[in-house]
Amino acid sequence: MRGTLYGIGLGPGDPELMTLKAARLIAGARVVAYPALSGGDSFARSIAAGVIAPGTREIRMDIPMTAARAPAQAAYDRNADLIAAELEAGRDVAVLCEGDAFFYGSFMYLFARLSRRFRTEVVPGVTSVTACAARAGLPLAARSERVTILPGPLPEAELRARVEGAQSVVLLKVGRHLEKIRRVFDALGFSDRAVYVERASLPDERVCPLSQAPDTAPYFSMILLAKGADPWL
Amino acid sequence: MRGTLYGIGLGPGDPELMTLKAARLIAGARVVAYPALSGGDSFARSIAAGVIAPGTREIRMDIPMTAARAPAQAAYDRNADLIAAELEAGRDVAVLCEGDAFFYGSFMYLFARLSRRFRTEVVPGVTSVTACAARAGLPLAARSERVTILPGPLPEAELRARVEGAQSVVLLKVGRHLEKIRRVFDALGFSDRAVYVERASLPDERVCPLSQAPDTAPYFSMILLAKGADPWL
Repeated sequence: MRGTLYGIGLGPGDPELMTLKAARLIAGARVVAYPALSGGDSFARSIAAGVIAPGTREIRMDIPMTAARAPAQAAYDRNADLIAAELEAGRDVAVLCEGDAFFYGSFMYLFARLSRRFRTEVVPGVTSVTACAARAGLPLAARSERVTILPGPLPEAELRARVEGAQSVVLLKVGRHLEKIRRVFDALGFSDRAVYVERASLPDERVCPLSQAPDTAPYFSMILLAKGADPWL
Repeated sequence: MRGTLYGIGLGPGDPELMTLKAARLIAGARVVAYPALSGGDSFARSIAAGVIAPGTREIRMDIPMTAARAPAQAAYDRNADLIAAELEAGRDVAVLCEGDAFFYGSFMYLFARLSRRFRTEVVPGVTSVTACAARAGLPLAARSERVTILPGPLPEAELRARVEGAQSVVLLKVGRHLEKIRRVFDALGFSDRAVYVERASLPDERVCPLSQAPDTAPYFSMILLAKGADPWL
C-alpha cells in the first residue's frame, strides 16, 4: 500500500485558522514536508507546529529564491524524489502550505511532479484575501460584483488600468512594490479608501488606510479596495 | 458587559473544513444566528450542526429572496434587532456564514447594522473558490498571474470580454446562468479546459470538464479556468 500525498492549506498565519481537517491530517501523518527559504525559518512549519506529533519525520525543502528558474526547479525535483520515496514505502506525506495550496502556493510544483503517480488530496485553506478583509472590517464583494486579484509585480501602467477598471481589488505580494502601488492608488484617488494589511491574523499584524501605510512593506502584505460594496443591501 | 458579535465563515460545506477557531467560538456561543431561505433549511446551520452545544439559543433569520430589496432589508433590520437584544444582555452571538462572511456573504448586512454599536469580530473561512480548485486538481494562480472572479448574472457580452481578457477565471453563482456561460466558453474555445464543480466538498459533489456539465446547475456551482498556470515552475 502506497501512501497518500496531502497538500494542506494552513491559512494566513494564526494556527487557529487551520481547518479541522488540516489539523487531523497533519497530526496523523507519518511525514510532513514544508518549504523554507534557504537558511531561514519555515513560516508554514511555524503555523502547524502545535499539531505535528512527536516523532514525525520532517522533510525541509530549501527552495532557492533566484531570478533564474533552474535552481528552484532542481530543488523541487530533489524534494519530489524524497517525498516519492516515503510514499513508495507506504507512508502518508502532508505538505504544509501557507494559505491555500493552489492559490499562489508552491505545492503546485510538487503536485505537477507527483499527482499522476500517487494518490493526492488537496485540502483547501483560508487565504490571505479573506483573512485581510476580515481584519480590515471590509466586506469584499456582494451580489454581482467582480473581484480582481492583482499581484504587486505587475507593471505600473497595467496596474493602473486594471485597478481603474475593477470593482473590488485585492493587491497581493505588495512587498517592495509598495511605492509603485501607492502612486497608482494616489493617481486614482483611492488611497484613503484602500486598506493596507500587513501580516493578517499574526500578533504583529498592522491594518491602516493605504495613505498611512509604512514606507516599506513585508512580502506578506496586501491592499484591499471595495468600490462598490453596498452593505446595507 | 455586552456580548461580542462574531461573523463566522464555515467553509464550503464539509464540516471538517471549518477552522479550529470557528469550531471553538460556535461551541462557546450562548446564541447562534443563521440565514435560511423562507420555509427552507439553513445550509449554514447544517455545516455547523456538530459543534453547536445543546441548549444554545438559535435565531433563524428567514430572508425573503425577492427582486425587490425592501422585504430583505426589513428582514435584516428585524434580525439585527433580535441579535442586538442578545448582545445588550451580555450574550455573545455567533452568526453562521457559508464560505466566508465577507465574500459574497449576507453577514455584511448585519455587520453594517451592528458593528458600530457592538464589539464585532469576523472569522475568515475557506471560500468555495479554493475548495473547488482543490477538488478539481487545478492550481489557480502562480507568481504574477491575475485572478478574476466573475458572478454568473453578468451580461453575456461583458462575461465574454472579461473571460477573454482574464488569466485565471473563477465563475461563481452559476446556477441558472449555466447556458449563457457555456455559450461564452464555447465561443472562446475554453469548454474543454474549463472545469465545472458542483457542491464542492459535499457528498454529492460533481467535478467534470465544462463540456460535460449537466444541463442545469445548482446555485452552489462554479466554473474554473486557469489559462496560464505553469505548475512545472
